[in-house]
Amino acid sequence: MAGRSTPLTTARGRGRPRDPQTDAAILRAALELFIERGVEGTSIEQIAKRAGVGKLTVYRRWSGKEELIAQAVEQTVPADLVPSPEDVETMTPHEIIERILPAAAETTASPEFRALTARMMGSAVSHPSLMAAYWKHHILPRRDLAMAMLRHAQQNGTVSPDADPDVLIDMMAGAVTWRVLQPDPPDAAEMLRYIKAVYHQIGLYHPTKAP
Amino acid sequence: MAGRSTPLTTARGRGRPRDPQTDAAILRAALELFIERGVEGTSIEQIAKRAGVGKLTVYRRWSGKEELIAQAVEQTVPADLVPSPEDVETMTPHEIIERILPAAAETTASPEFRALTARMMGSAVSHPSLMAAYWKHHILPRRDLAMAMLRHAQQNGTVSPDADPDVLIDMMAGAVTWRVLQPDPPDAAEMLRYIKAVYHQIGLYHPTKAP
Repeated sequence: MAGRSTPLTTARGRGRPRDPQTDAAILRAALELFIERGVEGTSIEQIAKRAGVGKLTVYRRWSGKEELIAQAVEQTVPADLVPSPEDVETMTPHEIIERILPAAAETTASPEFRALTARMMGSAVSHPSLMAAYWKHHILPRRDLAMAMLRHAQQNGTVSPDADPDVLIDMMAGAVTWRVLQPDPPDAAEMLRYIKAVYHQIGLYHPTKAP
Repeated sequence: MAGRSTPLTTARGRGRPRDPQTDAAILRAALELFIERGVEGTSIEQIAKRAGVGKLTVYRRWSGKEELIAQAVEQTVPADLVPSPEDVETMTPHEIIERILPAAAETTASPEFRALTARMMGSAVSHPSLMAAYWKHHILPRRDLAMAMLRHAQQNGTVSPDADPDVLIDMMAGAVTWRVLQPDPPDAAEMLRYIKAVYHQIGLYHPTKAP
């Protein structure tokens, strides 16, 4: 979880100290309602009510429900699942993947990840503002890291130099997304094997090779 | 029951001749309502009303809304997008892909495909019976054909023999699915380039090679 506010001050607030417990309650309420009802069935009013705060308390912190839900979804991504820019510069793709694999398998096999994935994909056309907010604030920064890993691998020769990194990232993310929405969803052990196979096909991971 | 058809009844009917125009109207109504409201917001009653028929007329033909919506979605897939089992036996994967590429690019770049993809993915967790029906009746038969193409390519050496075909199929289908749900969706020309890149990465298609 990425709740990094300090106890007394606020980096992003609009003039009042932020209470981390209030923020956490609002984010949790937003996540629950999004899973239960989707973005179209969720309002700031309902989120405030479930969190036990006033509507203005929510509006003071987030400009709209799309930004709020996007941040709530992002907070479900464990910190050890995303490499730092320094990791990407100093470690090989294989080493980075080896380190994030357990968290990646656990996370993507969880019922919460499945439900959030379905809701996010499901709203992409009927309610595109949520995907736009999530894409801009959360997906693009992670794609930049993946892009850097792929460029290293293209320099090292494990990934074809003429491959389009955007297509490769979609193949990796898209496979996992599609797999967890199929009937008979995988458990964490199956996801571990599955994600290794995906990375291996791209050329980022070599199961039989020592790191 | 099914063996007792007379000249006046149909093979699958429950005692009355089927009118192809009625079937088409019901399938079109089911598709429109699914796009507008999702599976949870669509009922047999609403479908019947929009198609201008009675509820019983629908129930006589389909056992439930999931089966009906699954068939309605399937009917949007152009016939020239799916190779026949004979094609798969007699043509190389490269030749098959070369032939289906224009239809694949047109279809996947269409607003209808985007909307249906979002709705289908979106209902996978909250309402899994639709995905289960679509998977069983429509996706699995197509996956079998893709599986046969991949086995040929593994024998020919363009696809790694140790790759898991299920993972490769998910990478291809997942990439396209994820791409069309991103902000700034692609047009048909961009999808043509994109799908070529996906098949090339898997080893089924070689843009620089003559077929």
